[in-house]
Amino acid sequence: MKKSVFYHAGCPVCVSAEHDILELVGRDNVEIVHFGQNKSRIPEAEKAGVKSVPALLTPNGNVLHINFGASMADVKG
Amino acid sequence: MKKSVFYHAGCPVCVSAEHDILELVGRDNVEIVHFGQNKSRIPEAEKAGVKSVPALLTPNGNVLHINFGASMADVKG
Repeated sequence: MKKSVFYHAGCPVCVSAEHDILELVGRDNVEIVHFGQNKSRIPEAEKAGVKSVPALLTPNGNVLHINFGASMADVKG
Repeated sequence: MKKSVFYHAGCPVCVSAEHDILELVGRDNVEIVHFGQNKSRIPEAEKAGVKSVPALLTPNGNVLHINFGASMADVKG
């Protein structure tokens, strides 16, 4: 399977989402791109349809924009 | 691994996202809940932190709210 690409910008929300995505999809199936560390990848992401981060570009070319919601533990914590 | 739960409401965007999520995470690892067909699951989802659909509740209790962005093919088509 072609890899997915997870685009993020290093915010805490992105890091949480990254952790979950890696666990769900499998680390070997996802390339992680940090825009803060690698601005040269931004045009490619925009071309693919990324409008916000974190976002997951799937192998078939769809973009899932992810908003990480607080868990109940976070709400309570 | 405990299953993830994918909550949706049958909109075209949800169905596209569902297809991608199932492909990425694996059909056996996700329970699909359609609120239109199963309103009784709404309170449980709200309790878990679901604020919009489609959303993926991960095995560790985090909620990923997913906004499916149009692919370039959609934009061009």
